[in-house]
Amino acid sequence: MSRTEISTLGEFGLIRHLTEGLTPRNASTLRGVGDDCAVLSYNDSHLLVTSDLLMEGIHFDLVYTPLKHLGYKAAMVNFSDVYAMNGLPRQLLCNVAVGRRASVEDLDAIYDGLRLACENHGVDLVGGDTSSSLTGLTLSLTCLGEAEPGAEVYRSGAHDTDLVCVSGDLGAAYMGLQLLEREKMALAGKKGAAAEDLQPDFGGREYLLERFLKPEARRDVVMRLREAGIRPTAMMDVSDGLSSELLHICSQSHVGCRIYEERIPLDYQTAAVAEEFNLNVTTCALNGGEDYELLFTVPLADHERVAAIDDVHVIGHITRPEQGSVLVTRDGQEFPLRAQGWNAFTEDGGRQ
Amino acid sequence: MSRTEISTLGEFGLIRHLTEGLTPRNASTLRGVGDDCAVLSYNDSHLLVTSDLLMEGIHFDLVYTPLKHLGYKAAMVNFSDVYAMNGLPRQLLCNVAVGRRASVEDLDAIYDGLRLACENHGVDLVGGDTSSSLTGLTLSLTCLGEAEPGAEVYRSGAHDTDLVCVSGDLGAAYMGLQLLEREKMALAGKKGAAAEDLQPDFGGREYLLERFLKPEARRDVVMRLREAGIRPTAMMDVSDGLSSELLHICSQSHVGCRIYEERIPLDYQTAAVAEEFNLNVTTCALNGGEDYELLFTVPLADHERVAAIDDVHVIGHITRPEQGSVLVTRDGQEFPLRAQGWNAFTEDGGRQ
Repeated sequence: MSRTEISTLGEFGLIRHLTEGLTPRNASTLRGVGDDCAVLSYNDSHLLVTSDLLMEGIHFDLVYTPLKHLGYKAAMVNFSDVYAMNGLPRQLLCNVAVGRRASVEDLDAIYDGLRLACENHGVDLVGGDTSSSLTGLTLSLTCLGEAEPGAEVYRSGAHDTDLVCVSGDLGAAYMGLQLLEREKMALAGKKGAAAEDLQPDFGGREYLLERFLKPEARRDVVMRLREAGIRPTAMMDVSDGLSSELLHICSQSHVGCRIYEERIPLDYQTAAVAEEFNLNVTTCALNGGEDYELLFTVPLADHERVAAIDDVHVIGHITRPEQGSVLVTRDGQEFPLRAQGWNAFTEDGGRQ
Repeated sequence: MSRTEISTLGEFGLIRHLTEGLTPRNASTLRGVGDDCAVLSYNDSHLLVTSDLLMEGIHFDLVYTPLKHLGYKAAMVNFSDVYAMNGLPRQLLCNVAVGRRASVEDLDAIYDGLRLACENHGVDLVGGDTSSSLTGLTLSLTCLGEAEPGAEVYRSGAHDTDLVCVSGDLGAAYMGLQLLEREKMALAGKKGAAAEDLQPDFGGREYLLERFLKPEARRDVVMRLREAGIRPTAMMDVSDGLSSELLHICSQSHVGCRIYEERIPLDYQTAAVAEEFNLNVTTCALNGGEDYELLFTVPLADHERVAAIDDVHVIGHITRPEQGSVLVTRDGQEFPLRAQGWNAFTEDGGRQ
């Protein structure tokens, strides 16, 4: 029997391969695989469903991840997918498997994070499964959300001349991860040292750590777009990195794009730590991932209204497909965007 | 900080502990944790949602589990929960994490099983997540189903004098597992033996293996109950074992029960192999688990109609709570039913 390595297909190629040719049997299935959520219609209610895995050693490292934060983040990852469809999350199911050394208090901490996330976003925790695991901690969450019928936003709706917008700032979670990984290495080299030497000094970098450990899904942006009467033409959340997500929108919408380096929103801590690590901050913002911000396109006519929304930034515009997907640097050079973001199937188990 | 071992609470105690005090915020949440599915209402459509984890080394052993069968079974476990609410499954999401040695062909085999299960039960595979795993194979599936509003059946509806019914036969999956475990042990002792000596002889036992490796959720029973105009008063599926499930129904319905050993449906292969293993076949049927049959109660007035349904067996009746939950043996003795079934948190990682 022949053997094909998963890495030859990549994460998205693999999903395409596994799900090709699936055609819905039920009238209630409006949209299956291929967007942030599946879209279902029951009695004209439009339901959004998304499900995400978080595996120890791949998606998180318990050395520096408090369990309460992990529960919170796991919920946010799912809520963010619902917001990215222009919906509101309503119900959450949590499957969790824990290793032998886990205690009831460990599970309590995870659930404290889940409960807080649900409280903050008006979501009901309605079910799930608990199991032991022979190995690491596994979280698998599923979120159901609701969209006004016809108001859900897919990745495929961007048109030539639409504006490309992103919320918040980018690259901060990635820099937070770098700081945590550096401390972990330092700690590993200090075994036997005095306790006070083991206290990491993250002074002034708290924002970056919070962005990585306890991200917040952008319900506020969805609500403000509604209030402003703006319906994005395409939207997704930034989990793998801006470049990767923008290329998904362009490919599914059959368009190109031009974004401008100088317009990519950055926090000053992100820039400072990138310099400290000798990294190009734009590369971090484009490919870092795990920002859980919203990336969306709006018609050009909405320019003034969208620019007036707090914490939303216009970073470029959609073009015809033959113009490609392009980053215009500060000095006016043009580079094709490339997806180099998070990939859960790379050789080193995820991170690159 | 204090530390409580999970084993002190047990699986069901743990779920109660983690989910206590959860109160729904959304009008669309009709029922949360505590039954086979959560029940949601969107525009008067009643949706059922269930999610289950399958962990390598806890729930399955790849030494004797073909991946296609594993995919099929993972889907059935979820469909069965929907049928147990008197609903029909409609959409399935599959999260899968695979170790480094897994190939695209391995994932294809799992998906072949999922697709076949979906085809056989009219379900759409609408999403999921794929990831690598540092350790074993993990499957986390979520199923959405639909019930006619008001027709969903909970565990809590059984009344004094109702008949206790079960579909199919019990204990076969457990005996199939015993056969597979015995072969695995034998194989481990035969390293270096000639290939023909390594071929297990399961002649005449195929039914038991199939019951364990490729169970079939009882859509047919749900449909036949509908055709017969019978709505069960309480229902759940037999995944942990008849005793355990019946005690759930009794406890949630605040009733007792009397079931009769002689009426518990058994396949002759189950009885033959139990004898071969020197096991009490009734104990296997009561506590074996993984049967994925339907256990339900119907009003006494439905006796004739329910008895006329093919492959459904009346095994006893519901009593007042003070009469307890009792098994009447063939020789007329009475024993209290005890939950000794499957528990994913026991010392040996699951199986007992």
